[in-house]
Amino acid sequence: MTRDLKQDLQEITSGFADGKIFLIFETNTWNLCWPLIRDFRLVPDTNILVLKPGEENKTIEQVMEVWNVLGSASADRSSLVINIGGGMLTDLGAFAAGTLKRGLACINIPTTLLAMVDASAGGKSGVNFRGLKNEIGVIRQPLHVFLYLPFLRTLDRENLLSGYAEMLKAGLIADRHLWEELKVFDLNGYDEEELERLIWRSIEIKTAVVEEDPEEHGIRKSLNFGHTIGHALESESMHVGHPLAHGYAVAYGMVKEALLSHHKLGLPMAAVDDIRKAITLLYGEPPATLSQSDILLEWMKFDKKNRNNRINFSLIDAIGSCRVDIEASIEEIKEALK
Amino acid sequence: MTRDLKQDLQEITSGFADGKIFLIFETNTWNLCWPLIRDFRLVPDTNILVLKPGEENKTIEQVMEVWNVLGSASADRSSLVINIGGGMLTDLGAFAAGTLKRGLACINIPTTLLAMVDASAGGKSGVNFRGLKNEIGVIRQPLHVFLYLPFLRTLDRENLLSGYAEMLKAGLIADRHLWEELKVFDLNGYDEEELERLIWRSIEIKTAVVEEDPEEHGIRKSLNFGHTIGHALESESMHVGHPLAHGYAVAYGMVKEALLSHHKLGLPMAAVDDIRKAITLLYGEPPATLSQSDILLEWMKFDKKNRNNRINFSLIDAIGSCRVDIEASIEEIKEALK
Repeated sequence: MTRDLKQDLQEITSGFADGKIFLIFETNTWNLCWPLIRDFRLVPDTNILVLKPGEENKTIEQVMEVWNVLGSASADRSSLVINIGGGMLTDLGAFAAGTLKRGLACINIPTTLLAMVDASAGGKSGVNFRGLKNEIGVIRQPLHVFLYLPFLRTLDRENLLSGYAEMLKAGLIADRHLWEELKVFDLNGYDEEELERLIWRSIEIKTAVVEEDPEEHGIRKSLNFGHTIGHALESESMHVGHPLAHGYAVAYGMVKEALLSHHKLGLPMAAVDDIRKAITLLYGEPPATLSQSDILLEWMKFDKKNRNNRINFSLIDAIGSCRVDIEASIEEIKEALK
Repeated sequence: MTRDLKQDLQEITSGFADGKIFLIFETNTWNLCWPLIRDFRLVPDTNILVLKPGEENKTIEQVMEVWNVLGSASADRSSLVINIGGGMLTDLGAFAAGTLKRGLACINIPTTLLAMVDASAGGKSGVNFRGLKNEIGVIRQPLHVFLYLPFLRTLDRENLLSGYAEMLKAGLIADRHLWEELKVFDLNGYDEEELERLIWRSIEIKTAVVEEDPEEHGIRKSLNFGHTIGHALESESMHVGHPLAHGYAVAYGMVKEALLSHHKLGLPMAAVDDIRKAITLLYGEPPATLSQSDILLEWMKFDKKNRNNRINFSLIDAIGSCRVDIEASIEEIKEALK
């Protein structure tokens, strides 16, 4: 956690020559976050890229623009790329940096709660392709990830809640105590110190899992709890032009996958109800799409986690305990989506 | 080295489900090499991609076509991509596989001498961008690299010589005895067993260097001997529309960098002459471009190996002994290019 981003950044960037550091924003973080760090005077204005925001611009075409600008500005293996934004920006920026000249160093500074919790560890990067989320990408550790709580002040409640879902997930798969704390935490007028502590605990969980299984052969898949159905819901909502925030999709996905966990692993119905109630309280009732099982199943078939055309889940057998590589049949999935 | 490619491939592919193995050729290797292995019956015809050949098609656009075809055919993390071709094809195919869904397994089967010696180890992949060679790429180990000597029978002498330059380089940077053997080896009507032994020794040298320094912080840079000037010559020759084969460019680059080695590291003039004579005998007199130092220097400034705008060389202080990270001034480079 970074109390003094200016000092931390100055320390790490002092090893890089003048003109070799590049900042990448998108227009939102440029407008809202750049003013908070402008006085750091990290780089000349010519070394700042401002990209188009949003999932619809998380494209290989925008990556090519980054390659073009960085390449033309003589970025080389002694360069450093600093990505400042939400998950879309850090994913895209890290992929562009990670593939230019077979890999430049990069630092990610997530500016949303979701990006802090979800995208800050693990080294995943990527862009969308053929309408599929993160279809193209690499796994490559950034040099550093800095968290800077003041950036969260730029977020509205929907954005905060979107990130909060990943924290709830961390509790559900690995830490019952964290889940209990998050259930009662007051996100309206939150205490920044307290939120910082909870973010930190969520990141710890994710980092431990990632370090134990960097190549995602086993336990790391537990991070996908709620994501198989959640991603399908997110893709469909994007497809029909009413995009659902990632965290909302994952939250609703966790409710359905909790029910699937009951059927497949015997998760007690009391726990399923506990999860459903807590998530409904925070996120409201799910959209009607969530019960359109035929449509969602079509999306699930494209999931990167599938092997040999079977649909693969990470499910919980208790709150705070996850099991991976659980294959569910079409009928079982339909039952959970009812 | 693979004596029985069919058996080796069947062993390794037996772990992959039906329909999940893809072969990638370009039109040349499709015409010349596919007939040699058609009877292996590795995959159904629908799982074969045939790309456009040549450096000019080593583009991100062609990578996007591969992503499209593989993605549409439901390639997933249980899939295997087998790249069959020269360096252009294996570089591009390995990059496409290495970035689709954040990385599918791939096997490279180089079909040219150059690709066998140069591209078979190290896990480098890439495509050209903004007119720069391998500007975009990743470093990622393929599952396997298979060498199959019969593919070399499809090559003409120029193509063979292009690969031979990388073997000469292996001798020059690390093994004087190999250099002496290669100098007297008869490439006209060569003995296949003997060539196989020499290829194998060259690969051993490269593999040892790569394993010692996978991230290219130190000794691995020795593989760049001849390549700083060689790449510039190659880029310029491509730019003016008379592309020089990679190995020829490297061979001429080694002659000039041997002279630079004399100036910077005291490589004896007798060794410089030995190298010049052997290379002229094999490759003929260098093109006039090689003395156009201003033009070549412009290309060198874009070299990925540069740091902080200094031009960086790997040079030899004796035949069989290389030193890396030698920075040369503009004047010193001009002197060597005279």
